[in-house]
Amino acid sequence: MGKVTFHIAVSLDGYAAGPDQNLDDPIGKGGMRLHEWLFPLAVFSGTGEGEVNESTPVVQAWTANIGAHIMGRNMFGPGRGEWDESWTGWWGEDPPYHTPVFVLTHHEREPLTMKGGTTFHFLTDGIESALAQARQAAGDKDILIAGGASTIQQYLAAGLVDEFELSVAPVLLGRGERLLDNLGASLPEVEQVRAVGAPGVTHLLYRVR
Amino acid sequence: MGKVTFHIAVSLDGYAAGPDQNLDDPIGKGGMRLHEWLFPLAVFSGTGEGEVNESTPVVQAWTANIGAHIMGRNMFGPGRGEWDESWTGWWGEDPPYHTPVFVLTHHEREPLTMKGGTTFHFLTDGIESALAQARQAAGDKDILIAGGASTIQQYLAAGLVDEFELSVAPVLLGRGERLLDNLGASLPEVEQVRAVGAPGVTHLLYRVR
Repeated sequence: MGKVTFHIAVSLDGYAAGPDQNLDDPIGKGGMRLHEWLFPLAVFSGTGEGEVNESTPVVQAWTANIGAHIMGRNMFGPGRGEWDESWTGWWGEDPPYHTPVFVLTHHEREPLTMKGGTTFHFLTDGIESALAQARQAAGDKDILIAGGASTIQQYLAAGLVDEFELSVAPVLLGRGERLLDNLGASLPEVEQVRAVGAPGVTHLLYRVR
Repeated sequence: MGKVTFHIAVSLDGYAAGPDQNLDDPIGKGGMRLHEWLFPLAVFSGTGEGEVNESTPVVQAWTANIGAHIMGRNMFGPGRGEWDESWTGWWGEDPPYHTPVFVLTHHEREPLTMKGGTTFHFLTDGIESALAQARQAAGDKDILIAGGASTIQQYLAAGLVDEFELSVAPVLLGRGERLLDNLGASLPEVEQVRAVGAPGVTHLLYRVR
């Protein structure tokens, strides 16, 4: 059975997104600054152009063995309430997932098949059911909780995450969505697997006991 | 002129102390867990007994060039309000500072000279005045803001810190005193100097621009 993982960029003060998410600021105001270390990398550009540094193998490992993704509705788009079915995600015709993606929502919607192997399935029956369906789709491969902060919190609080990586950017946001918050009374016990310092970021990998 | 620095252990969720500081829990409930990586080290024991690992040179650097310390009253002791003059700090007759220590308080008290070169000066005229006095005492050496979280926040928010190190422990506390909070509207701009992964901790060094 594959692992359940997540990886996410956070500010030094622990925010995974800035405040006021909207069409112009998909990660909230200032949220893009959490990813500045990523944009110059060849592994990000997809064209082979760009830098290779200590972040390169870390980023490559993130996509190495993923068989399904889970994300919250607020990561899929800025809309709330009933679906605007013209919205097909932030990522254009060929989203960067290339697996089934299970979107947690309170509003039913037919599956949405995109190019490149990404199909969005909209699930309304909670995080455990979504994980069961993701496991079935993933087979022996790993399941990536793609985000956002609230979805990750729910899986962490439920004890359903095996391993996770925080990419700590040298940025203070002051407000926004704090990642490691709302975890309830029985906090996960974690151990540090390794740390990688890279230009403009440090990658911290943890295993949940 | 020396640098103004601080170094502090934080949990993965950003707490520098657990909740409910008292005589039995000087760093709050669970706060000692932030320092578990430190206790086995020879550089901590003071006797030469113990481990040497990647944390050793990091810890050695912390004390290498310090000419004065500044701390908040709540770090000096658990009392509040008027002084109980029988309280001379948590650290016994020979505190680990070996320099003048400027304690920020609202209540006047005569200086307290301890063994080993530590003298506690109790200052009631604010953080900038305390820094000026610490600079005079330190000469060309650096000034360490010893803590706790609230004192560090005040110096960071005032733009008076040059460099700082966070030692991130693989622990979730869930509540307590968050370090990087209450920094006001003009947040410090920081750059990452280096990261050191060590057993049970990662040390992240930042420079304030």
